[in-house]
Amino acid sequence: MGPFKGGQAEHLRVPHADYNCLKLPGTAGDELEDDFVLLADIWPTGWHDTELAGVKPGSTVAVWGAGPVGIMAAYSAVLRGASEVYCVDRAPGRLEKAKQAGAIPIDLTQGDPVEQIMAMRKANTRMQGALRPGEEKMGGVMCGVEAVGYEAFDDKNPGTEHSTQPLEDLIRVVNPTGQIGIVGVYPAQDPGGANAQAKQGIYPLPFGQIFEKGLSIGTGQAPVKRYNEYLRDLPLDAAPDAYARFDKRGSDYIKVIHKPGMTASAAD
Amino acid sequence: MGPFKGGQAEHLRVPHADYNCLKLPGTAGDELEDDFVLLADIWPTGWHDTELAGVKPGSTVAVWGAGPVGIMAAYSAVLRGASEVYCVDRAPGRLEKAKQAGAIPIDLTQGDPVEQIMAMRKANTRMQGALRPGEEKMGGVMCGVEAVGYEAFDDKNPGTEHSTQPLEDLIRVVNPTGQIGIVGVYPAQDPGGANAQAKQGIYPLPFGQIFEKGLSIGTGQAPVKRYNEYLRDLPLDAAPDAYARFDKRGSDYIKVIHKPGMTASAAD
Amino acid sequence: MGPFKGGQAEHLRVPHADYNCLKLPGTAGDELEDDFVLLADIWPTGWHDTELAGVKPGSTVAVWGAGPVGIMAAYSAVLRGASEVYCVDRAPGRLEKAKQAGAIPIDLTQGDPVEQIMAMRKANTRMQGALRPGEEKMGGVMCGVEAVGYEAFDDKNPGTEHSTQPLEDLIRVVNPTGQIGIVGVYPAQDPGGANAQAKQGIYPLPFGQIFEKGLSIGTGQAPVKRYNEYLRDLPLDAAPDAYARFDKRGSDYIKVIHKPGMTASAAD
Amino acid sequence: MGPFKGGQAEHLRVPHADYNCLKLPGTAGDELEDDFVLLADIWPTGWHDTELAGVKPGSTVAVWGAGPVGIMAAYSAVLRGASEVYCVDRAPGRLEKAKQAGAIPIDLTQGDPVEQIMAMRKANTRMQGALRPGEEKMGGVMCGVEAVGYEAFDDKNPGTEHSTQPLEDLIRVVNPTGQIGIVGVYPAQDPGGANAQAKQGIYPLPFGQIFEKGLSIGTGQAPVKRYNEYLRDLPLDAAPDAYARFDKRGSDYIKVIHKPGMTASAAD
Repeated sequence: MGPFKGGQAEHLRVPHADYNCLKLPGTAGDELEDDFVLLADIWPTGWHDTELAGVKPGSTVAVWGAGPVGIMAAYSAVLRGASEVYCVDRAPGRLEKAKQAGAIPIDLTQGDPVEQIMAMRKANTRMQGALRPGEEKMGGVMCGVEAVGYEAFDDKNPGTEHSTQPLEDLIRVVNPTGQIGIVGVYPAQDPGGANAQAKQGIYPLPFGQIFEKGLSIGTGQAPVKRYNEYLRDLPLDAAPDAYARFDKRGSDYIKVIHKPGMTASAAD
Repeated sequence: MGPFKGGQAEHLRVPHADYNCLKLPGTAGDELEDDFVLLADIWPTGWHDTELAGVKPGSTVAVWGAGPVGIMAAYSAVLRGASEVYCVDRAPGRLEKAKQAGAIPIDLTQGDPVEQIMAMRKANTRMQGALRPGEEKMGGVMCGVEAVGYEAFDDKNPGTEHSTQPLEDLIRVVNPTGQIGIVGVYPAQDPGGANAQAKQGIYPLPFGQIFEKGLSIGTGQAPVKRYNEYLRDLPLDAAPDAYARFDKRGSDYIKVIHKPGMTASAAD
Repeated sequence: MGPFKGGQAEHLRVPHADYNCLKLPGTAGDELEDDFVLLADIWPTGWHDTELAGVKPGSTVAVWGAGPVGIMAAYSAVLRGASEVYCVDRAPGRLEKAKQAGAIPIDLTQGDPVEQIMAMRKANTRMQGALRPGEEKMGGVMCGVEAVGYEAFDDKNPGTEHSTQPLEDLIRVVNPTGQIGIVGVYPAQDPGGANAQAKQGIYPLPFGQIFEKGLSIGTGQAPVKRYNEYLRDLPLDAAPDAYARFDKRGSDYIKVIHKPGMTASAAD
Repeated sequence: MGPFKGGQAEHLRVPHADYNCLKLPGTAGDELEDDFVLLADIWPTGWHDTELAGVKPGSTVAVWGAGPVGIMAAYSAVLRGASEVYCVDRAPGRLEKAKQAGAIPIDLTQGDPVEQIMAMRKANTRMQGALRPGEEKMGGVMCGVEAVGYEAFDDKNPGTEHSTQPLEDLIRVVNPTGQIGIVGVYPAQDPGGANAQAKQGIYPLPFGQIFEKGLSIGTGQAPVKRYNEYLRDLPLDAAPDAYARFDKRGSDYIKVIHKPGMTASAAD
């Protein structure tokens, strides 16, 4: 993607490198070097998603998708002080990762993920005694995070594309006056779209429900340079238990790093 | 609407009146009394729309609709320090009101309102010499304000309902990373909807374009109590020239006030 | 204090109780009842202090004072996602409490607390490789929290009142463009003041240093009603490890609760 | 000031010019060229002062000092939608400028400027009927802007330096929970200070009053690069009546521009 070819070659020309590059601490080859790969786009994108969703200390958060961006969004929500973070996916390995990042994993193959979250919230909370009239209807979360994109599958029919499935779920699970951040890609032109509307990036959306709930929606690619210096410093300064979440990551991986000169590698 | 009947009767029971009522300055019957009617819902709704659209000092703003809410939204944008405020409608009387509120009226019967605004922006601005590469493509505004709702007409076919017309226009006219506020009603259920989707409040929206531009969208009914005390004081304290905008309002009206005991009245 | 007598009597008249009282969850007498006493003023005041100090995810924070408000401020900073929280005092029991709240205790009897924090920050950080020119001079923290007040002792001479000691320390330890929150009381009239200026609440402050660093300072009593409903729900919803911090509190106490009918009690 | 000599020579070396310079619209020599000189530091500094003071639409504002920065602060407050802007000075020419910028001039040679503002506010407002108990005591403004600095004169004794006079006045005139921005310079070292404390930038301040009112105070030099592109575009896009304020500026000047090759010039 983009006009500059060869991004995965051994050597690289970097236009405007004085602006675009980020200085890293430590020494080349030390144990943090691979972690910093996340600063290139995955973590800023996940963090941006929690920014668009308005995650604050004490927020309840639901992340749709436990791919690299979804996991880093869930982890970002934890770092921002969210009180409950749910992460929805269908792949056991990804859900395990989400759990290590501090989220409550929701396996959508086990039933409607929105109903699962609402049931869990009802069971976890001790708020029953303090609710005001009408609040018992608001069993969802205040912040929704979309990290799937238009190639989403239907919740009930894996393998069948249903581009708006994550959006429809999020609109249901987010409480009135809540906020949804969307970084999963929805293209303006899609030659392979299922119908004439999809080819132009037009999707049927429950906008009446969005309006009735008074939801706010933020979208778009992450402005990486706005966040990466800040995120570089965040985990370094963090208290030791912030690290611990990723310590025992087993054999799964968040992102594959191509190391020139090595035959094959999968690192996390 | 709502569970309390008789809102237009001569006397009224007001539940939770100690909380719901707003104390007004001056004396009953003075010349400001009628103006304060705007505080009941019209002005807070228009102000909320500019809040959802993120209007700041220097913002460029396009308001869709010059009904009561649209006019008060345009006026709110002016008070918030917006540098350019466009207001789009098809009714000459409404457009005249918009102009008195400080907006540049755009008559959509004269051609595509998005193109009209972009042409005006290009003609008005002296920025050509200072643009950075790519900026010349951004000929729109940063803030879009929707004040029409799902009963909107098609721009080109007056009389033909086209619920998403204002949204489609706003998505085109707002620049990348801009913000759109929506207070025009889009119901979650509409028994009279044109088709099965519309009956459930589902509308086809150019979501790919929203995402590609990275727009943010805020929706919902105005929290009147959050704004009405603030707005009550705003014009009272304002410098004299803030008033002048409404001084010569002629025979048009923003809102009809039913005064019990009078045979007929239309006041502005 | 205040016009209403008998606040510690067995029964109490509460003016405007419908507004002033906060509904609590659970049942009377359950294990959380005593914790909720903190919502009356201590926790909102500590939280307000972190609000005034601008504590955000990743912030580095120094809290002066480990009394009830200081400890709840430190705990609030942890909940808001601060990456490092230092808490300064001279009493071992209080410092132990600060540690349980998630802060790094700084014992000011062991040397200049500002230098202790700067030395710790230098030792903890792995940022040396990524610093830009000039940053190495900024060895302090971004957020300062004052929770002592005008009856402060001199750092070096315990027993000698030195009202501006905490402010002077905070102005030194906070980095340029940082922010200081002050909820420790500084009265406008103090008949017992050490000199004519102190009697009028006038204190000699290093304002040149404040200006040169470009610091921002927020002051004042906490608006308890702005925070207490939010804080009531915060720990209830929080993940289990948020509770764990206070679980083994030993015999120390944060606040004494007078229970009518009991001979004596000290609870935490 | 600063390490680069010759700032007023005919030619100039500009380090990091690709970052530091700001591209201007229009053509060299046109009628706006001189106006843009204000973007170099005066206007960003004045704007920053209103930012530090939290000026919002409808704010009531008092600016201390009608020098270049004070006037541009007053003008910035008007552009931000302030409802009342007072500007205090003792020089008639400066006060006339402040008036042209949209402020209400307060001549401190005519009596205590705080009492003048409070009397004017009481006379201007029609709020008497809507005040809640206690509000009548709050006769001041919500935002205070300091644009004088440590070389301030005593209000009553012109010629006698009284460094904290503007701060003392602002602390009196700003209402409880209000905000004060300070960009007038207060140095950390002042070899010419009147006494030992002043030499170290230590000033006696009514901190008890600051705390009792719960004021917030922001200080420091303006980050010019944060504002100058935004401010460059602000007046160009602005509606014609925004310009009119400066149209008839007469023979006074805001800032002297040295034009190499011309014998002498004073332009505004």
